[in-house]
Amino acid sequence: MRENMNEKCAVVGIFGHEEASKLAYFSLHSLQHRGQEAAGISSADGHKVHTIKDRGLVMKVFNEENLKTLKGSAAVGHTRYSTAGDDSILDAQPVFARYDLGEMAIVHNGNLTNAEEVRNALIEKGAIFQTFMDTENLIHLIAKSMKEHLLDRIIDAVQRIEGAFSLVFLSRTKMFAMRDRFGFRPLSLGRLPNGGYIVASETCAFDLVGATFIRDVEPGELLVFEEGKAPQSIKIYEPQPKHCIFEYVYFARPDSSVFGQSVYETRKNMGKELARIEPVEADLVVPVPDGGVPAAIGYAQESKIPYEMGIMRNHYIGRTFIEPTQEMRDLKVKMKLSPMTDIIKGKRVIVVDDSIVRGTTSKRIIRMLKEAGASEVHMRISSPPTTDPCYYGVDTPDKDKLIAANMSTQEICEFIEADSLAYLDEASLLRSVNATDESYCTACFTGKYIV
Amino acid sequence: MRENMNEKCAVVGIFGHEEASKLAYFSLHSLQHRGQEAAGISSADGHKVHTIKDRGLVMKVFNEENLKTLKGSAAVGHTRYSTAGDDSILDAQPVFARYDLGEMAIVHNGNLTNAEEVRNALIEKGAIFQTFMDTENLIHLIAKSMKEHLLDRIIDAVQRIEGAFSLVFLSRTKMFAMRDRFGFRPLSLGRLPNGGYIVASETCAFDLVGATFIRDVEPGELLVFEEGKAPQSIKIYEPQPKHCIFEYVYFARPDSSVFGQSVYETRKNMGKELARIEPVEADLVVPVPDGGVPAAIGYAQESKIPYEMGIMRNHYIGRTFIEPTQEMRDLKVKMKLSPMTDIIKGKRVIVVDDSIVRGTTSKRIIRMLKEAGASEVHMRISSPPTTDPCYYGVDTPDKDKLIAANMSTQEICEFIEADSLAYLDEASLLRSVNATDESYCTACFTGKYIV
Amino acid sequence: MRENMNEKCAVVGIFGHEEASKLAYFSLHSLQHRGQEAAGISSADGHKVHTIKDRGLVMKVFNEENLKTLKGSAAVGHTRYSTAGDDSILDAQPVFARYDLGEMAIVHNGNLTNAEEVRNALIEKGAIFQTFMDTENLIHLIAKSMKEHLLDRIIDAVQRIEGAFSLVFLSRTKMFAMRDRFGFRPLSLGRLPNGGYIVASETCAFDLVGATFIRDVEPGELLVFEEGKAPQSIKIYEPQPKHCIFEYVYFARPDSSVFGQSVYETRKNMGKELARIEPVEADLVVPVPDGGVPAAIGYAQESKIPYEMGIMRNHYIGRTFIEPTQEMRDLKVKMKLSPMTDIIKGKRVIVVDDSIVRGTTSKRIIRMLKEAGASEVHMRISSPPTTDPCYYGVDTPDKDKLIAANMSTQEICEFIEADSLAYLDEASLLRSVNATDESYCTACFTGKYIV
Amino acid sequence: MRENMNEKCAVVGIFGHEEASKLAYFSLHSLQHRGQEAAGISSADGHKVHTIKDRGLVMKVFNEENLKTLKGSAAVGHTRYSTAGDDSILDAQPVFARYDLGEMAIVHNGNLTNAEEVRNALIEKGAIFQTFMDTENLIHLIAKSMKEHLLDRIIDAVQRIEGAFSLVFLSRTKMFAMRDRFGFRPLSLGRLPNGGYIVASETCAFDLVGATFIRDVEPGELLVFEEGKAPQSIKIYEPQPKHCIFEYVYFARPDSSVFGQSVYETRKNMGKELARIEPVEADLVVPVPDGGVPAAIGYAQESKIPYEMGIMRNHYIGRTFIEPTQEMRDLKVKMKLSPMTDIIKGKRVIVVDDSIVRGTTSKRIIRMLKEAGASEVHMRISSPPTTDPCYYGVDTPDKDKLIAANMSTQEICEFIEADSLAYLDEASLLRSVNATDESYCTACFTGKYIV
Repeated sequence: MRENMNEKCAVVGIFGHEEASKLAYFSLHSLQHRGQEAAGISSADGHKVHTIKDRGLVMKVFNEENLKTLKGSAAVGHTRYSTAGDDSILDAQPVFARYDLGEMAIVHNGNLTNAEEVRNALIEKGAIFQTFMDTENLIHLIAKSMKEHLLDRIIDAVQRIEGAFSLVFLSRTKMFAMRDRFGFRPLSLGRLPNGGYIVASETCAFDLVGATFIRDVEPGELLVFEEGKAPQSIKIYEPQPKHCIFEYVYFARPDSSVFGQSVYETRKNMGKELARIEPVEADLVVPVPDGGVPAAIGYAQESKIPYEMGIMRNHYIGRTFIEPTQEMRDLKVKMKLSPMTDIIKGKRVIVVDDSIVRGTTSKRIIRMLKEAGASEVHMRISSPPTTDPCYYGVDTPDKDKLIAANMSTQEICEFIEADSLAYLDEASLLRSVNATDESYCTACFTGKYIV
Repeated sequence: MRENMNEKCAVVGIFGHEEASKLAYFSLHSLQHRGQEAAGISSADGHKVHTIKDRGLVMKVFNEENLKTLKGSAAVGHTRYSTAGDDSILDAQPVFARYDLGEMAIVHNGNLTNAEEVRNALIEKGAIFQTFMDTENLIHLIAKSMKEHLLDRIIDAVQRIEGAFSLVFLSRTKMFAMRDRFGFRPLSLGRLPNGGYIVASETCAFDLVGATFIRDVEPGELLVFEEGKAPQSIKIYEPQPKHCIFEYVYFARPDSSVFGQSVYETRKNMGKELARIEPVEADLVVPVPDGGVPAAIGYAQESKIPYEMGIMRNHYIGRTFIEPTQEMRDLKVKMKLSPMTDIIKGKRVIVVDDSIVRGTTSKRIIRMLKEAGASEVHMRISSPPTTDPCYYGVDTPDKDKLIAANMSTQEICEFIEADSLAYLDEASLLRSVNATDESYCTACFTGKYIV
Repeated sequence: MRENMNEKCAVVGIFGHEEASKLAYFSLHSLQHRGQEAAGISSADGHKVHTIKDRGLVMKVFNEENLKTLKGSAAVGHTRYSTAGDDSILDAQPVFARYDLGEMAIVHNGNLTNAEEVRNALIEKGAIFQTFMDTENLIHLIAKSMKEHLLDRIIDAVQRIEGAFSLVFLSRTKMFAMRDRFGFRPLSLGRLPNGGYIVASETCAFDLVGATFIRDVEPGELLVFEEGKAPQSIKIYEPQPKHCIFEYVYFARPDSSVFGQSVYETRKNMGKELARIEPVEADLVVPVPDGGVPAAIGYAQESKIPYEMGIMRNHYIGRTFIEPTQEMRDLKVKMKLSPMTDIIKGKRVIVVDDSIVRGTTSKRIIRMLKEAGASEVHMRISSPPTTDPCYYGVDTPDKDKLIAANMSTQEICEFIEADSLAYLDEASLLRSVNATDESYCTACFTGKYIV
Repeated sequence: MRENMNEKCAVVGIFGHEEASKLAYFSLHSLQHRGQEAAGISSADGHKVHTIKDRGLVMKVFNEENLKTLKGSAAVGHTRYSTAGDDSILDAQPVFARYDLGEMAIVHNGNLTNAEEVRNALIEKGAIFQTFMDTENLIHLIAKSMKEHLLDRIIDAVQRIEGAFSLVFLSRTKMFAMRDRFGFRPLSLGRLPNGGYIVASETCAFDLVGATFIRDVEPGELLVFEEGKAPQSIKIYEPQPKHCIFEYVYFARPDSSVFGQSVYETRKNMGKELARIEPVEADLVVPVPDGGVPAAIGYAQESKIPYEMGIMRNHYIGRTFIEPTQEMRDLKVKMKLSPMTDIIKGKRVIVVDDSIVRGTTSKRIIRMLKEAGASEVHMRISSPPTTDPCYYGVDTPDKDKLIAANMSTQEICEFIEADSLAYLDEASLLRSVNATDESYCTACFTGKYIV
């Protein structure tokens, strides 16, 4: 149960299906875990690009009636994580533009590291920016490119931007999908049952709409979707994969495959590795739901210590504005998580979680378990200490808020009042994801940034 | 009770008051009758322009908390009338832009007649448009102007646009207000109690915030508001006043003064003129509430026929989705308006309304009065037949929906089942508003468009 | 614009129409001015009594879907004015009961003066009360009556209660309507277009559903509605009419007839009487909208002083939670009412309102008119000073809050800062309503209570 | 994931805490899984019983402001499961009554089997019923009892009712808790940190408010709570325990103890028994979340077959009103549950669920797993076939909707398209809950009803 690091968004593209916007809707629903603040879909019907976007969950923004106005056989969609800002509604996606070649809509997952520089250059040349999204750079770059055809302009544009981006562009007749050369953020390609195509941040979006996985869009690859043709692949950059390893640790849904591997399996592997390198004598392995479940299953399988559901997640959470009474400790955690007293009492418990960001939640969970009678609580984290912020599309707290950036593991252990605390080390983490080369970004654990 | 012609919006600007956004909020509330679909305010605090806009009434969009984030001593605001469109939230104002000179926000009441031409020219040169508002042209024109200073750029920009516009620009430190050379739409200047200034579409916005009327912004005039100085007046164009006469007929609130005259008085004058040129023997003068009230008072005073509240307006309107039963005729009108049966029964009634657009509402009202027992119903309209659509900022139906464009007065009279029908003629209308020259646009009655 | 005295509710009954609940719905909508807090309808289909009631306006509580579940050819409905209480939803009507004769629903407008006494007696005998409504007494009295037939039990029951009541009872097959012997609250009988019947608090409920007025239910009369028969009249009490004169002064809608006379006409008469007995030299007669409009029309007609719409009512009211700035005086009134400055400036104004309850609103209105430039403001009230609370179904403030109970007219005049203040006297008021005998309750002006 | 059998409600009582209603609020939140349609709390302050109840979740019905009006040091609360009915708001609890001894409020979990008989008898004697809840019987029985003291009357009353009931009564100064002689529904007693007491349907309500478990209220026991005294125990009936075994199978939260045992442990035992009596060669044990999780853990531990999270539960469920496209099979299930394709593919899967009610959901889950590539799917149910409806407080479908009442296990297996299907038998189920005697009601599996 972490509340401090979050994916910033999800993208989806549908091409070649007469109910494209409806498929985009259901796909976005499957990707809701990547962003709950705003949702939007643009569709293209050959003549026009239609856009609807608003604050709220996918199911709230769209209804039978407004989906009908999103006509056409191609559509792109976006869900956004909450960010601060004067008027966040303006920062919802897709970003739409009319320009000299017609109309386009763009959805973007990632973070452009040279956004300010590019924007300032564009502004100097007379461009105006109407939002605070780095994605707005792209429509300017495309509009200002001297090339005649949209494809060439997109190629021009993506060569000007740096950082993390999984993008889907929609024109009135075509769709384009692109990943940065490092492939920071995931983007997969699938086939719709009727012959059309889908691209989406995670493969879990495929299942609901009946699509089958083809392959990932490659780092540095641009896919062009045109009516009546198979997607055309253009290699803009030589791939230098630096996949975000935190997708495996926490962001992606366990039923997705990202970067070519099952998320659930990699998480279980992390738990197994953790059991091997950080064993401890105990009676139970207990996950912090839901994030810690797969790693705890792995830890239990490897250690032969029984896996138990020692902490229950309450499904009727929501925020209460009623002040607790004096006696109610740790209300915030307890309204979401409950200790299974009968399981825990008198037992030595290994608690498995995916990461520790600020440490306060871990502290509350351990206190809760101790109050429920646990004789020992050993915390095991299925990733290395989170020491550095992310500049590639993840919402992280400032470095001074990251407990592992400011305390040793021993100090954290004392702070959270655990009997022992151990993390997975970087090498084991990489092993868990079957990394045979340097194809992952681990900057949040190491501070080694790519660019 | 007309539902078919509507002002498209209202603008307000506040300069030199430490609670500028709050004053903008209350002013917009007074201008709510000019647009109910969306509302927005931008404020400037010297360093930044802050914007909040959303669908809904002013009171719904803003609250204590979000108004507090609109810091600074200058603010501009806007309310918008409902228009069709894919995603109307994107078309709310203020329009905000970051550009080479910093940040700006613009609010606009009117309609640019060369919008498409200008936009196409801008797009050809690489500009991108993110909304469907003609107002977006302005931020491009300003951003692309080669002039060094914002003032000069605004002058450049407004010389490129044609049509109807009452505009307020906000930069991080200054405010600018401008009216087109014809002064189609109203814009008045007032003094705030503490020494600051307000500009607003109607003077009724002044009362609530305690401002006093100074004068109208002149046609073709640009007013520059800078800290510590009186507003500086720059004459961009020689005034060629063509004020929208329909502001007097219907749009403006009766407690406002626009174009230098009391709206209520001019409406009463119309009623008096109507009584003089279109008298009829009758027992009562009855207004269609609320639009027909002032003219009916004038008609009654001039004709000496008693003024009576023969039709009541229901304050709990709202749309019902319950199907009426067979017996319920004219449900739509009757849920809003009720006949005063005891007043009407056996009487010869003169019904006064401000205009007839499609004719269906008039027909229902007359039928309702007849069913209530009126022995005769004479319809008197305090404006000439509405025959032509407006291109200067008013939302009008197509010409083929305007009953007076397709039927003679006699035919309309038969259609609405009145015992007689008479309109005010153009000359009398102009007399009612004390027009001594050709200073009014009457195109919706005459088809004589200025440009 | 008064906010301090209010009707407590409205009742309606429909008998002999296959869409009875739908007619009840539309009738209640017409009676919405008598109560906005809760609404409910019960229908009877011969076998069962169905009930839906909830907080909110009629249009919010009911929808196509839930109205369909209210089957049957008879229905009773109720709207309720806001009252305090722990859990006000429980106090919505109709009151439903299953008892030895089957099922029944009751709606009630009025106030039982012996409610506590009856309730205590019932409780002593083992009854339980589940709400705080005096109406609950009735279902107990009916259930406990030893009579065999419902009609006889209703007769039993209504003889046990005292005070003000206009009641409609619904059993599974019949409907009963009853007024107390004094006829405090109105109740009229109408004929539906298809042959069925309607009873309603005001005749304005008849128009929308196409019903025609037959006559008032008489004081002390019980009407029995049975399938296939004309309503049967039973005289329970000799009528001793004491109609609530405040229905004429303020509560009833101007397009209704209550107690046999047009509400609008009686209000105009009050204004005429007021002009005769309390003349004053002035330039304009101005109503406080909407309550003061008919009396102001009457005052103007009688005095020959021009009637002007000198105060405008804003239709976009609603409550703001934004704190006003220092300069904004009388914000609460000004958001609802605006002075017509051009009309008022330099003029001697007669302001006509229906009553003064606490005096604070009158004070604000006068201050507003003075600030708008009125040279003199003469307040004229179309009823006598309100000195005493009502015990017959009207929500009045305590006596110590009624300004006329605590100050002389001269003192009130000074308090509200008027140049003169005059009320209608009791005799003139009675004359206005054509009272030839003592058939009206004027207790709120005189303290002379009937019982 | 079952949607067809549900607990009807939860009750809670707080005594001797100055923030009683706040503790009731948080306790009800912990019991939200037992009823989501309506929530209510009554409090007693020595002089008065205050009640608030409404439709919706606990967190929606209550807020800081309205909780403050629920004064006093004692409170009872209730959450209700959705039931059909004309106007379900009327059927929310607590049931409140004023009667000859003052005021009382009652909350009830269970179902009275002689409700109609008792009600008819009461109605014959003149009682009236205003709701459709059997609980209303109780207030009548108490009010009509000839005994002088409330305690004696409660004893009188509970001796007149039959069936399942866990009740909490609140008077202005005292609280009473009672369970039927069979103890069908759970009710536990706890101590508040400050010395007061709590009773609640499940012990999970204790944790959040810091209470400690004392013991269960015994079958047939009445507990009396008076200020300054320990709870007094009165044995009304000799206990004949027939605890609802379905509380262990599905209803109760896993972190609760009911009937003296950990819910989670008993569920794990069921899984272990199931593995012993219904083994099958397979690669994985997969729970249907969340209901099947504990039994699947038990099955895996016993069978040594790896436990895997092969089906994921989506946390952003909610109802969509968008029609699926042709290709979307099993949309309803898939929006809630997703197959973990990488885990499932090519594997022989044992799926563990708590029960099968109608069979349609099981069918969809199995189809989903097969489509995800499972080579075999073996369904294991941790309870016997559900063949008979419940009359003791559980919402069950009619017998003709219960698949096991109409098909053999083999037929069900074919219907749900499983490779094998096996249930736990009654004896093993009883063993799982450590039943050494006939202390459990298993009527829903056996049709052997107690009464």
